[in-house]
Amino acid sequence: MIEKINLTMLTDFYEITMANGYFEAGMSDEIAYFDMFFRRIPDEGGYAIMAGLEQVIEYLKGLEFDDEDIEYLRSKGIFSDKFLEYLKNFKFTCDVWAVPEGTPIFPYEPIITVRGPVMQAQFVETMILLLVNHQSLIATKASRIVRAAEGRPVMEFGTRRAHSTTAAVYGARASYIGGCAGTACTIADREFGTPALGTMAHSWVQMFDNEYEAFKTYVEQYPTNATLLVDTYNVLKSGVPAAIKVFKELDPPNKGIRIDSGDIAYLTKKARKMLDDAGLEDCKIVISNSLDEYIIRDVIQEGACIDSFGVGERMITAKSEPVFGGVYKLAAVEVDGKLIPKIKVSENVEKITTPGFKTLYRLFDKDTNRALCDIIALDGEEIPEVEEYEIFDPNAVWKRKKISNYYVKNLRKEIFRNGECVYESPSIDEIKSYCAEQLDLMWDEMKRFENPQTYYVDLSYDLWKLKNDMIEGTK
Amino acid sequence: MIEKINLTMLTDFYEITMANGYFEAGMSDEIAYFDMFFRRIPDEGGYAIMAGLEQVIEYLKGLEFDDEDIEYLRSKGIFSDKFLEYLKNFKFTCDVWAVPEGTPIFPYEPIITVRGPVMQAQFVETMILLLVNHQSLIATKASRIVRAAEGRPVMEFGTRRAHSTTAAVYGARASYIGGCAGTACTIADREFGTPALGTMAHSWVQMFDNEYEAFKTYVEQYPTNATLLVDTYNVLKSGVPAAIKVFKELDPPNKGIRIDSGDIAYLTKKARKMLDDAGLEDCKIVISNSLDEYIIRDVIQEGACIDSFGVGERMITAKSEPVFGGVYKLAAVEVDGKLIPKIKVSENVEKITTPGFKTLYRLFDKDTNRALCDIIALDGEEIPEVEEYEIFDPNAVWKRKKISNYYVKNLRKEIFRNGECVYESPSIDEIKSYCAEQLDLMWDEMKRFENPQTYYVDLSYDLWKLKNDMIEGTK
Repeated sequence: MIEKINLTMLTDFYEITMANGYFEAGMSDEIAYFDMFFRRIPDEGGYAIMAGLEQVIEYLKGLEFDDEDIEYLRSKGIFSDKFLEYLKNFKFTCDVWAVPEGTPIFPYEPIITVRGPVMQAQFVETMILLLVNHQSLIATKASRIVRAAEGRPVMEFGTRRAHSTTAAVYGARASYIGGCAGTACTIADREFGTPALGTMAHSWVQMFDNEYEAFKTYVEQYPTNATLLVDTYNVLKSGVPAAIKVFKELDPPNKGIRIDSGDIAYLTKKARKMLDDAGLEDCKIVISNSLDEYIIRDVIQEGACIDSFGVGERMITAKSEPVFGGVYKLAAVEVDGKLIPKIKVSENVEKITTPGFKTLYRLFDKDTNRALCDIIALDGEEIPEVEEYEIFDPNAVWKRKKISNYYVKNLRKEIFRNGECVYESPSIDEIKSYCAEQLDLMWDEMKRFENPQTYYVDLSYDLWKLKNDMIEGTK
Repeated sequence: MIEKINLTMLTDFYEITMANGYFEAGMSDEIAYFDMFFRRIPDEGGYAIMAGLEQVIEYLKGLEFDDEDIEYLRSKGIFSDKFLEYLKNFKFTCDVWAVPEGTPIFPYEPIITVRGPVMQAQFVETMILLLVNHQSLIATKASRIVRAAEGRPVMEFGTRRAHSTTAAVYGARASYIGGCAGTACTIADREFGTPALGTMAHSWVQMFDNEYEAFKTYVEQYPTNATLLVDTYNVLKSGVPAAIKVFKELDPPNKGIRIDSGDIAYLTKKARKMLDDAGLEDCKIVISNSLDEYIIRDVIQEGACIDSFGVGERMITAKSEPVFGGVYKLAAVEVDGKLIPKIKVSENVEKITTPGFKTLYRLFDKDTNRALCDIIALDGEEIPEVEEYEIFDPNAVWKRKKISNYYVKNLRKEIFRNGECVYESPSIDEIKSYCAEQLDLMWDEMKRFENPQTYYVDLSYDLWKLKNDMIEGTK
């Protein structure tokens, strides 16, 4: 089971063949810089949400090869004894910079940079990608779904459809960062404090002679959490009437009904009227049936009477686009202490990497605090806070724009220095609040579900020139 | 990190509110039967592959509430002390039947049945669904992709795009069951023996002055695993020529090139010719670039020269349809030792459950051994091996068909008896072989990617009558 898994070996096999290769070639201590970035926002959305950094930190802190790992590697018959001996004493000594969790992020931004001996900096590729790709995917999807709900709480209900155990647990975490109010996943509550909620399945209702008995037994036990599932037989003919009867008899302080099937707009309007006519205006209506941002938007538009949503498989798997395509690319090396930028060219312009040791700035409007643009710059480069600063599209330099009345924030934090963690992860609630605040600083036009406005992510002039000179140089 | 996670609490919160509810209502020992089944095959495919049972068994064996769990539950303030005391001594005592891993399965079949005290049988719902949904999803997708490759090996390369850690590990396991030759996921090799392979990333090539140096260094170290990544700069202009030069100089026993971008059909044909012209007919060509069953089928049809495939994100996430919709529904209870079937009706015919304690038979043709149909029957019912047996569509009873010259196999195994595991999981290679053999017994018409023939899954007459009588009875 997963408890036994030592995550150090959760890595693509090529990370190990390369590590041994660098070791044997005497290159293992050459200093390299790797960037994690992504090229496309899922669902053609206008922004993504950074998540998974806390798990990356835990992973890097825990990195070590135990005896079982060494013996397994020895059994492959292709790694040198010296290398295996080296792994026994392996210690992570890299520097790491990253964008904090909850930050809106955009394509091509260096959201994580790892600097250190190439063997180490390369080795951690798989897990950094795995952890950040997964949680950023789910946080981004959750953010869309929560926005569609227009202030109504959204609960994460997808555990049973998650892609295995940790997908459920960290998916619940990520969806909370993205704005969900809580989860059905109990262990996520225990581990992260993402509030867990839940009441009953259809089987509870079926275990009793009728809905009235089932609901009454439940409300007697849970008067403060009395959300009754009313669609086991017939929502309007039997479920809602039985719930009303029980609520009138027992008057629990928190009343609710949940509908998990059928036409949401029709049923919720009818149910609302039945509840109101019975004097149960305080009874909430919860909906949970294959929901996503599009269905939620549509039923709200149709006037459905809904107080909160439970969203399952379409959020926990990011069903409409279940891949966050983060990559991890070599950006520079050091030779005799001198930084040498590296580039990977491609016939496909989008696949050309941006060379050098970089950092990331966001410019905000001084009056509204709205985010104006992001600038990827060379490390050490400052974006001046001047009267007017001209940005330009790195792929179409004639597209220029003058920015004024702005202030500048560096979006990245130092996470590890010489292998020591120098960053304290915020609490999950701090991350969630930070995410909501930062999204509030983004223009609404970028948050549309379809055809959102593209946020400006430009290169500093110096970085743009370096990149273009290097592309010219490879011809 | 995941190592600390006690999986007992990886459950929907409502499983616990219901458990406490049954306990407080004095119903916890009432015997209930739950079936896991699914309603739709992903990708509109003709079959799915059962997987994840071994992890279900491990989960059920490990089920216990530790002090941390109890204290967490106590902190919620809604569970009785007696119930929490009971959980301390909790022991799983249910009976479980299931279809073995690797079996082709179809909608509405009871692939798992749990019988036991309702509190327990209900409680295990979330994890059974989570584990079987995930691995069956990936095994089913892998089976499609492997079939498209027409005998060429397919490697699972998706770790970095998996939905968190265990999705990578168990996804690698499931894809191996579905027919993959191996994985890039090192830990899956160590844990399950699914062979791990891998050579180099683009960064390896970039760390050297040129491709020739990068390749030479690699081949010197790994002559038996010399697959060179040739698309860092330009496949045909620099990558393949450098590989050829190194292969000619060092003549490693296992030569290969990998192409990870660009037009597969064009590049592989050109590369094949260059290699052959250099006398390197034994050099294999590996392709890995956003592949799935459709792209693989198309490039083979276009005459691409490919020896094996590496498939990443589209398999490990089942990207085209990342949800396996298994559900877990109450099928019967026992009252005073007497079996009482239970049904959940719905206006949607597909959502009506099939009541009763059931089992599952597959009928095979005596001459060809081909699978003819599956019959869901009541437990204890035998399908007679007679001259002629008439099956009928349970939703359109006028659709009848006479089966003859057949033999019958019960597809389900007893897994737990009174909470004790009585089943020994086969090795992963046995499961993989079994899967391939069983698929061979299915008609090709059901294996089409689009519009496959629907395999017959019918009810025995007695079961059909029970179901229909119960539907009538609820009106």
